[in-house]
Formats: sequence, structure tokens, C-alpha cells
Amino acid sequence: MQNKNTPMPRIHFHQQLDDLKDRLLAQAALAQQALDCVLDAYTGGDLGLCQHVMDNEQAINSSERLIDQAAYDLLAMEQPMAVDLRFLLSVIKINSDLERIGDQCVNIADRVRASTGLEKVTLPVDIPTMGTTAGVMIRTAIQSLLEADAFIAESVLEMDDRVDDMNHKAHADLTKLMMEQPEYAEQALNAVIICRNLERIGDHSTNIAEDVIFWVRGADIRHRLSVAMD
Amino acid sequence: MQNKNTPMPRIHFHQQLDDLKDRLLAQAALAQQALDCVLDAYTGGDLGLCQHVMDNEQAINSSERLIDQAAYDLLAMEQPMAVDLRFLLSVIKINSDLERIGDQCVNIADRVRASTGLEKVTLPVDIPTMGTTAGVMIRTAIQSLLEADAFIAESVLEMDDRVDDMNHKAHADLTKLMMEQPEYAEQALNAVIICRNLERIGDHSTNIAEDVIFWVRGADIRHRLSVAMD
Repeated sequence: MQNKNTPMPRIHFHQQLDDLKDRLLAQAALAQQALDCVLDAYTGGDLGLCQHVMDNEQAINSSERLIDQAAYDLLAMEQPMAVDLRFLLSVIKINSDLERIGDQCVNIADRVRASTGLEKVTLPVDIPTMGTTAGVMIRTAIQSLLEADAFIAESVLEMDDRVDDMNHKAHADLTKLMMEQPEYAEQALNAVIICRNLERIGDHSTNIAEDVIFWVRGADIRHRLSVAMD
Repeated sequence: MQNKNTPMPRIHFHQQLDDLKDRLLAQAALAQQALDCVLDAYTGGDLGLCQHVMDNEQAINSSERLIDQAAYDLLAMEQPMAVDLRFLLSVIKINSDLERIGDQCVNIADRVRASTGLEKVTLPVDIPTMGTTAGVMIRTAIQSLLEADAFIAESVLEMDDRVDDMNHKAHADLTKLMMEQPEYAEQALNAVIICRNLERIGDHSTNIAEDVIFWVRGADIRHRLSVAMD
């Protein structure tokens, strides 16, 4: 809300909102890198990449605190209204989801490390494709944030079903393999957990998209189009 | 912050904050019930209880939206400062964690339903004890909210390590069982997932405790004492 008596501080305030958005986008880039990295680690069994994901998570955690503090300071000092208030609340929520995407990537890195030394085996699951789909969900959610576009955000909600279906199918196929070829139970269990982690990344991307819709349209659509399972 | 020129509206505002806290406590009671219920369902294999957890989740989801909206309205209309602003931001975050505890209970109910019809087998994991510990974490976190007591909240953070350790041990022991007795792979896999769900409930309880500390003391302690994995 523009206040005609004090135009300069409001311009300054909106500059601060833009800066905050830039910081959130940088945080999103870190989360995306973490996923790309851990998928490469899975494909190549590269422990160096796993370590990189762990280090990356520390950066995401530090950044989460700073972004939260900056959003809190703006709420406290500027007492924003309407769309600006919704933006700041969305920043706080999106920030939390990005940090949790980082955590999921660490969980995947843990499973990749646990798989090191185990016999390589072809499993009935296409983790790279599932991971790529989850990655597209993050990127699309962040694009909707960048462009303040609720239509782009809505497309993320539709993608979530695809990742959920892949996860259900992987769970069934990998359970079957565990029973038929128990010597590969560890590899199959690691894959089951990675699929669940990827599904969670899809859920967090969905949460981000919902927050963008809340910010742009002022509508809370949670639990209507999809249920974000944790 | 009391405004001497307008005492009545501020009194009304603090009454609204108290009402919001009561609604959050009622939401917490639903989340606790969901966990109790799903643990009973696990022990007794009771599908009726599983259905109750599903129904309960709908109530939690509806309530989450209403609490979020009420917190947003108070932020927009009252433009609170300092401890009141921190309280409202904490309500929004705690509300989200309670809803996710409800989701985790639904995930556990799914695994209990998936176990129906499978041969009953003694597994090397004490899920009731792990579940009880997670339940104590929720209750303690909510007690710290009720009493605005950061010391009680800190005790939740210490309990989290115990649940994490139980989960790691269960993962190792159940993997071993899958390899040695593949005929019980499904039961063991369901138990692995339930343990991960319980660990997540511990993490959400930790998040709630951290939010209480932020509210009461104004300190953001995330990622210092423990890392909340998602």
C-alpha cells in the first residue's frame, strides 16, 4: 500500500522486498543444485558429490536463518498490508520448504553413501527420471515465484500426481524384488527410501506453488487440489 | 505492546491472541489423538482406527486453514510488534508442523493397512516404545507452548536424539531381517517406513519447540542443537 505522505520510505521498503525475493531465489538455486548433485551422485556413485551436498546443506541452513530474520524485520518495522504482507508470509513458508528440500537431498546422499560397496544391480525403478520430474517441479515453482504467476504455479500441482504415481509403482516393484532376490534387499531398500525422498521434494515444490498462489491471488488452496504429504 | 490511547482494542487483540492459542492447542490435541490412534491400530491391526485417522486428518486440514487465516487477519488488522508478532509467526509455523504430524499419522495408517492380511511376525523393532517417545515429544512441545516455557521446549530437543537413534537401529536390524528372511520383507519394509514416519514426528515436535523458544526468547536456534530432517 503506497503512502503518499512518505513516498521515499515505501520505495525503500519495496526495494527491500525485491532484495528479499532475490535472496530467496538464490536459496532456491542452492536447493536445485543439491538435487542435481545428488542425482549425479546416485548415477555415478560419486562420494565427493555426496560430500558437496552435505556442505551445501550448511549453506542452505545459514541462509534460511538470514532470510527468516530479514522477513521478520520487515514485518516488524514496516507493518505491511495486503499483498506485501502475503508476500512476506509466503517468503517465510517457501524458505522453510526450500530448506527441507535441502534436507531431502541430504537423505538421498546418505542412501547413496550407504549403497557404496554394495554390488551394482539393475533395479525396477527409474530414479533419474523421477528425480528429473521432481527437479522440473522445483524449477517451475520457482519460476512462478520469479514471475508472480499463479497459472505457472498451478501447473506444479498437476505434476505432483505423476511423482506420487512413480513412487507407488517403485514401492510395489521394489518390494517384489526384495522378496524374490533378498541378496539385493539393501539396494532395493535404499531405492525405496530415495523414491520417498523425491516424492517429498515434489510435495515441497507443491507447497511453494501454493504459497505463490496465496501471495498473488490471496487464495489459500491447500488441501483442495492435492494433499501435501510429509 | 500496550497503546495507552486505545486500551480497549488492545485488550480485545490480546483476547484474540488467546483464542488463537486455544485453537492451536485444540489442533495439537487432534494431532496427538492421531498418533495415539495409529499406534493402537498398529498394535491391534484395527482398520477402523486407520479410517478414524484418515477422517481426523480432514479435520486437521480444515482447522489448519482456519488457524492460518485467523493469524493472517490479526497480522493484517493489528500490525503487532515484538512478542505478539513473534507469537503470530510461531502460530503459523506450529500450525504447519501439526498438520504434517497428521500427515505422518496417515502415512503410518497406510502401512498398517498394507500389513493387513500379511502373516504376523515378530520384528526386531519396538515400534510402540518409539511411538510413545514421539508422543511424549509432541506433548512436551505443546506443554511448552501452553506455558510459554522455553526450558520445557529445550527438553524436547534432547529427546529428538533418542528417536533418531531408535530409527537408525531399526533400519539396520530390519534390513538384516529382509536379507535373512525375505518371506517377511513386506512386513519389515512397512516397519522401516513407520519408523521413519515416527522420526519425522519427532522432528516436527522439535520444530514446534524451536518456535516456542523463538516466541518466548526472540532467539532463532534452528540448526544449532539439532538438524530437523524432513
